[in-house]
Amino acid sequence: MQYNLNALANKQKIINDPIYGFITISGNLVFDIIEHPYFQRLRRIKQLGLTAYVYPGALHTRFHHALGAMHLMLTCIETLRSKGTEISAEEAEGVVLAILLHDIGHGPFSHALESVLVKGVNHEEISLLFMHKLNEIFNGKLSLAIQIFQNKYPKSFLHQLVSSQLDMDRLDYLKRDSFFTGVSEGIINSDRIISMMRVVNDTLVIEAKGIYSVEKFIIARRLMYWQVYLHKTVLCAENILVNILKRAKYLIAQGIELPATPPFAYFLKTEISAPKFFQTNEVAEIFSKLDDYDVFASVKMWQWNEDKVLKFLCNSLVDRKLWHIEISNQPFNQPFQDTLLKKIQELFHLSYEEAMYFVISDSVSNSAYKPGNDKINLLYRDGTLVDIADAADQLNISVLSHTVEKFFICYPKECLVIL
Amino acid sequence: MQYNLNALANKQKIINDPIYGFITISGNLVFDIIEHPYFQRLRRIKQLGLTAYVYPGALHTRFHHALGAMHLMLTCIETLRSKGTEISAEEAEGVVLAILLHDIGHGPFSHALESVLVKGVNHEEISLLFMHKLNEIFNGKLSLAIQIFQNKYPKSFLHQLVSSQLDMDRLDYLKRDSFFTGVSEGIINSDRIISMMRVVNDTLVIEAKGIYSVEKFIIARRLMYWQVYLHKTVLCAENILVNILKRAKYLIAQGIELPATPPFAYFLKTEISAPKFFQTNEVAEIFSKLDDYDVFASVKMWQWNEDKVLKFLCNSLVDRKLWHIEISNQPFNQPFQDTLLKKIQELFHLSYEEAMYFVISDSVSNSAYKPGNDKINLLYRDGTLVDIADAADQLNISVLSHTVEKFFICYPKECLVIL
Amino acid sequence: MQYNLNALANKQKIINDPIYGFITISGNLVFDIIEHPYFQRLRRIKQLGLTAYVYPGALHTRFHHALGAMHLMLTCIETLRSKGTEISAEEAEGVVLAILLHDIGHGPFSHALESVLVKGVNHEEISLLFMHKLNEIFNGKLSLAIQIFQNKYPKSFLHQLVSSQLDMDRLDYLKRDSFFTGVSEGIINSDRIISMMRVVNDTLVIEAKGIYSVEKFIIARRLMYWQVYLHKTVLCAENILVNILKRAKYLIAQGIELPATPPFAYFLKTEISAPKFFQTNEVAEIFSKLDDYDVFASVKMWQWNEDKVLKFLCNSLVDRKLWHIEISNQPFNQPFQDTLLKKIQELFHLSYEEAMYFVISDSVSNSAYKPGNDKINLLYRDGTLVDIADAADQLNISVLSHTVEKFFICYPKECLVIL
Amino acid sequence: MQYNLNALANKQKIINDPIYGFITISGNLVFDIIEHPYFQRLRRIKQLGLTAYVYPGALHTRFHHALGAMHLMLTCIETLRSKGTEISAEEAEGVVLAILLHDIGHGPFSHALESVLVKGVNHEEISLLFMHKLNEIFNGKLSLAIQIFQNKYPKSFLHQLVSSQLDMDRLDYLKRDSFFTGVSEGIINSDRIISMMRVVNDTLVIEAKGIYSVEKFIIARRLMYWQVYLHKTVLCAENILVNILKRAKYLIAQGIELPATPPFAYFLKTEISAPKFFQTNEVAEIFSKLDDYDVFASVKMWQWNEDKVLKFLCNSLVDRKLWHIEISNQPFNQPFQDTLLKKIQELFHLSYEEAMYFVISDSVSNSAYKPGNDKINLLYRDGTLVDIADAADQLNISVLSHTVEKFFICYPKECLVIL
Repeated sequence: MQYNLNALANKQKIINDPIYGFITISGNLVFDIIEHPYFQRLRRIKQLGLTAYVYPGALHTRFHHALGAMHLMLTCIETLRSKGTEISAEEAEGVVLAILLHDIGHGPFSHALESVLVKGVNHEEISLLFMHKLNEIFNGKLSLAIQIFQNKYPKSFLHQLVSSQLDMDRLDYLKRDSFFTGVSEGIINSDRIISMMRVVNDTLVIEAKGIYSVEKFIIARRLMYWQVYLHKTVLCAENILVNILKRAKYLIAQGIELPATPPFAYFLKTEISAPKFFQTNEVAEIFSKLDDYDVFASVKMWQWNEDKVLKFLCNSLVDRKLWHIEISNQPFNQPFQDTLLKKIQELFHLSYEEAMYFVISDSVSNSAYKPGNDKINLLYRDGTLVDIADAADQLNISVLSHTVEKFFICYPKECLVIL
Repeated sequence: MQYNLNALANKQKIINDPIYGFITISGNLVFDIIEHPYFQRLRRIKQLGLTAYVYPGALHTRFHHALGAMHLMLTCIETLRSKGTEISAEEAEGVVLAILLHDIGHGPFSHALESVLVKGVNHEEISLLFMHKLNEIFNGKLSLAIQIFQNKYPKSFLHQLVSSQLDMDRLDYLKRDSFFTGVSEGIINSDRIISMMRVVNDTLVIEAKGIYSVEKFIIARRLMYWQVYLHKTVLCAENILVNILKRAKYLIAQGIELPATPPFAYFLKTEISAPKFFQTNEVAEIFSKLDDYDVFASVKMWQWNEDKVLKFLCNSLVDRKLWHIEISNQPFNQPFQDTLLKKIQELFHLSYEEAMYFVISDSVSNSAYKPGNDKINLLYRDGTLVDIADAADQLNISVLSHTVEKFFICYPKECLVIL
Repeated sequence: MQYNLNALANKQKIINDPIYGFITISGNLVFDIIEHPYFQRLRRIKQLGLTAYVYPGALHTRFHHALGAMHLMLTCIETLRSKGTEISAEEAEGVVLAILLHDIGHGPFSHALESVLVKGVNHEEISLLFMHKLNEIFNGKLSLAIQIFQNKYPKSFLHQLVSSQLDMDRLDYLKRDSFFTGVSEGIINSDRIISMMRVVNDTLVIEAKGIYSVEKFIIARRLMYWQVYLHKTVLCAENILVNILKRAKYLIAQGIELPATPPFAYFLKTEISAPKFFQTNEVAEIFSKLDDYDVFASVKMWQWNEDKVLKFLCNSLVDRKLWHIEISNQPFNQPFQDTLLKKIQELFHLSYEEAMYFVISDSVSNSAYKPGNDKINLLYRDGTLVDIADAADQLNISVLSHTVEKFFICYPKECLVIL
Repeated sequence: MQYNLNALANKQKIINDPIYGFITISGNLVFDIIEHPYFQRLRRIKQLGLTAYVYPGALHTRFHHALGAMHLMLTCIETLRSKGTEISAEEAEGVVLAILLHDIGHGPFSHALESVLVKGVNHEEISLLFMHKLNEIFNGKLSLAIQIFQNKYPKSFLHQLVSSQLDMDRLDYLKRDSFFTGVSEGIINSDRIISMMRVVNDTLVIEAKGIYSVEKFIIARRLMYWQVYLHKTVLCAENILVNILKRAKYLIAQGIELPATPPFAYFLKTEISAPKFFQTNEVAEIFSKLDDYDVFASVKMWQWNEDKVLKFLCNSLVDRKLWHIEISNQPFNQPFQDTLLKKIQELFHLSYEEAMYFVISDSVSNSAYKPGNDKINLLYRDGTLVDIADAADQLNISVLSHTVEKFFICYPKECLVIL
């Protein structure tokens, strides 16, 4: 039996995802952008940097997260349309592209190295830069997506779907990060939250019956922050990596040759300011080649470097000989730190400046919910809108708005015996 | 090839469970008690009464829950032993039996009918009664279990495993109820919570690093209360069932014959006081025959009864023609209720007393966490114990201690047009 | 802030399902049919009869299964449309209603009692009868659904979605049954199988790349048959129930009064032939009141009956004192059965006819795949269609076409000592 | 309240795993070996090489797999002991270490590069080498593990747990690979299979009632082979990588400098024979530094190489511009390949030798079950042992024993237009 297979030719692309089952790529433009090297680079940038040192499953990438957020966006568009919100085909494509590309400016090891590699430029600005570059390549077809991303498009609820306290970005990353880490308490029911969404006066709101799901989303987020994103062992590893880069930059500035992959070498040698990043094509082009492989392969090479600071830091990281870390609600006092530095100098035969690389003292902070302009609104049956932090008989979400700050100090375990 | 199969004969009994994979029944006494008709009766008592009217998967039984709680108890015993807490083989069997039998005194439709069928006797007292009866049958082998259940055994942490704010009962029912309802936000990580348990000074405590898991457990419990256990449609159905029983009892008291299965008929005809329940064997024996089938099969028969009140109530329930229900933070005012009753009298041609069955006005309340004697203690690394409600930078669990009360009123949908 | 809530009024109904997350009910007709007492009755008919005696989670109902199959149908319609198959809105509603109602004719305990309660009428015929009754009630709006159900509608692939070797019925029940029993090996990937479906020449086919998924579906089905549907302990329990009904019918025919709920009493007293079922309204109306509660509540009452055969059988079932069962690839020989009957007569002081109720000897058979008219076709990229049983390098699915028959005999455990 | 925390000091290490929930590391030796750089290297070797190009979740590592297999081993030991098989504490530690280290000799990109990097040495031999090295470091504490690994220990069932058709290696990788790829049909029930294991005459067997689970395991394995391990797009990517290495080695042999990380450069420059690998410490030490980062970071650098063959291959891989691939049951005929090579020469302006890198023609084969010495035995209740391939009414597992071979050819998509 024969059959005309024309229909088979233009088939939809379906990607397997352990979380959603299938992710469907619909539309040629979306498909072509996913195929572009700028986007493919995200395959080589882990979503959670060095978190796999604690949760060995957490190796998922920005690439996978972007696809997942796109999947949720498609579900959300369908839900909102079914409730009477008009979203044209162009707007749908725009908001899908905006979420797909929202992280395209992330550099290697995501947040950890953001401020060390390029000072004064955050990844959102770089994402925007790459969107503009893609817009040129694709003949202006991303203009609407860029407007939505920048919140310059009249229908501002579309921007809220891309960036707000209940955007598709957060819904996907919370779910994905808890899935791959195995921290099942962080798992949220993105389906239910999306099913409760609605647009009122151009604002994304949650139907009041969804109050407990949103509450649980906020609590899950808080849990993920302290249990995963700010896990003390991860903090330690990331800060060692930061110090590695600082030391490498310092040595290079002293004229010392360090082996490194070319795009990484570029960023180690050149101090990139925000204007420089955006004024020439060069920086962006080289940035678009840079990923986790460059950084880690270089760090691996430095394990045998002559500089004993760099060597020690790199060995600590590669062989996962992580340091002792202490957490406190108060800052660590200066005399303690001074003593520590002195002991380290003696123990490792280092100068004061060198010893500084062996003590990391900083703080992290987080607030689970931020009221204000970007609040989460509940829609009651009588049409009233209420900020979830003010909702009656609520678990005082407002308490969660307070920023919690935690101080930490870490240093090589070898020092424990001398303290 | 031949092989001596003696070893196969005494094989362990393994039961499939969609939640834990397998539940292992270890020990002949436990096995024999599960086989006993008293325990088998729990197969015919749904854990969540009429909740399946809203969540169609919620048909799981007290039988399954008791096995699940037993499974968690076995895991917990293993964990505590591995941390140095001594639990003898006898104590292990005792605490396993205590959790297995903690619900054996539940009557049909669990909590809903508790106060209507037998006044002034709660299910814990009846559970204790049946434990004593089984203790006779099994020659005193349950004495230790009974002591633990009653908190009369010296090691009081064993009682806490059976009954406290973090007992195996709650860990299983929260997990099981969210699993079968499909309300995935209620799912808790019982494994992780158990892995954080420890016994200090004969008290069950949670290691401080488990703070977020416990917090999430409390939030999940709160969510399950309002989203499932006190779901307004379930409240409505359960209250219709309560009114059916009240009406049936009233009619029987008037000398009217109502068909009913024998054990159910007994409880409809006889006013059982607490002393009566415990003084004779008769009541308990008949109670041990009573289950969901008796109640529902009888209600089905009453759909064609001559009494129009009973008939209407039974039709509402069996055909799931549930009533209108309103929820409020304040009590519904009396004039509104009076008007409603009047209208119902007219619409259904009823007397005032009859109309009373068509209006249900009551309140439900819940507090997610109860501090005080039965608090949840966190153990810090320095050995300090702190009530979770007082733990620093905590999400103000104390806020959750306030009892939230909600008022509701429900009445047939037919009345909506006349209001 | 106020908002016009008209849009909220006509909201979609969403049902929680532990398997699919959410099941959406779209369309008023579908909603009204689900609300109808005929359909609500399915809430009281367990999908797997007495299987919960072995797998305690298996309490799910025909109601839940029908909703699940409807959910898959909606997914499937969307998939086929995206591949260019035209399905009009009317056809979509028709095929959805057809799958929703495909089991509406099931009686209590599903297959187990099918041939005992009503002889010579299978549940498909009764389903059709109820569809016609609903069609009258809903002014002919089910005509298309009925045509599809009967395979009288020109587009015959629609019928295949309702009834064939890869229909939505099977996809849902395999998934649902393995989920609730906890036999995770039976879980199939319905999403993937549906995503591989396509219509060619008005025939439902599977794209060739789906070959391994279909193969695994067939193997999973085979596994579920032998591990669940034909589990020996379930067979035993179901056959005891069948014998209970036979004995009850016999006693009633002798003029003995047996308590029973009214609709069940009707079917016990009246011999219903196929013509009688369909010629009057009476039988169908009473059948529409009959469910698991009637049967089990009656069986419970008979535990104290004077007839010692009935009493013994009912006690065996209610208290789960199930019998010894043996399985064999050959029939059990007659002399063995004769000896057994004789011993039973002596042991229980029974007549030969009475003893017959204590020995159940029968066979079960199953073939995992049935080639022929209703084969599963694979579509290759060159347009060829091939029966999966003939596909190259396939695991000889044809082997699975052979019918496997197993013989069993069961009798009270008390007999083991005398054999 | 204060409490002596000595007990807290020596706490067990618990690792989160999305599959098993928790993996417990018990024992100091096991812990120390996991901490060793040789084992930590496995964090940087993906289990499935380039499979993430098709299944983006498949980024899990040999490290994670080894921990998972260890977890299953612990479960299995417990099960076998509960059935009366004696396993001493030393044997338990030995078999746990053997499974933990079974893959420690894997090089970057696992199987794909095995024959290219080091000719004539397979990863099992290298694993053994590293076990011996660790044995020296840990003062002979791994001797028993090595005996088990080599099947030289008297209790040979222990070796079967490490390496046979139902070993812990396969049980974990099938489960893990299907989990992370999202190919849910491959998921097996490792718990159930382990629960059916038993040791008879020093041989690992499966109780007969486990027949369907084993059958399903074999089918799942088959499905994973064709759907994942031998997925055509993965084959294409891996073969491009192989050609990259071949070209790089060729260029280096010509005296051309290629940037590469030091350990990778060593293996590119030096032809390593089996004797050389094992006679000196040098090769193994350098091999122990080599991982996915070395290979991929080097490939990335070669994207701008002057050699146009190398450049084209590397761009194809890094930017995921994968080639056209065709699969066939017969070998591709030589004339077709000759024409193809000619066209490629013209299109890319290449010599014949260069063009050879642009056409990959090979075959893959697999048999789902291998009878013979390493068969899977079923244990029947009468003590008989039967090879599953011969079991009655079985799905002709023997059919699955046939080796299936598939031929493929792949070449740049640019050639499609000229063919």
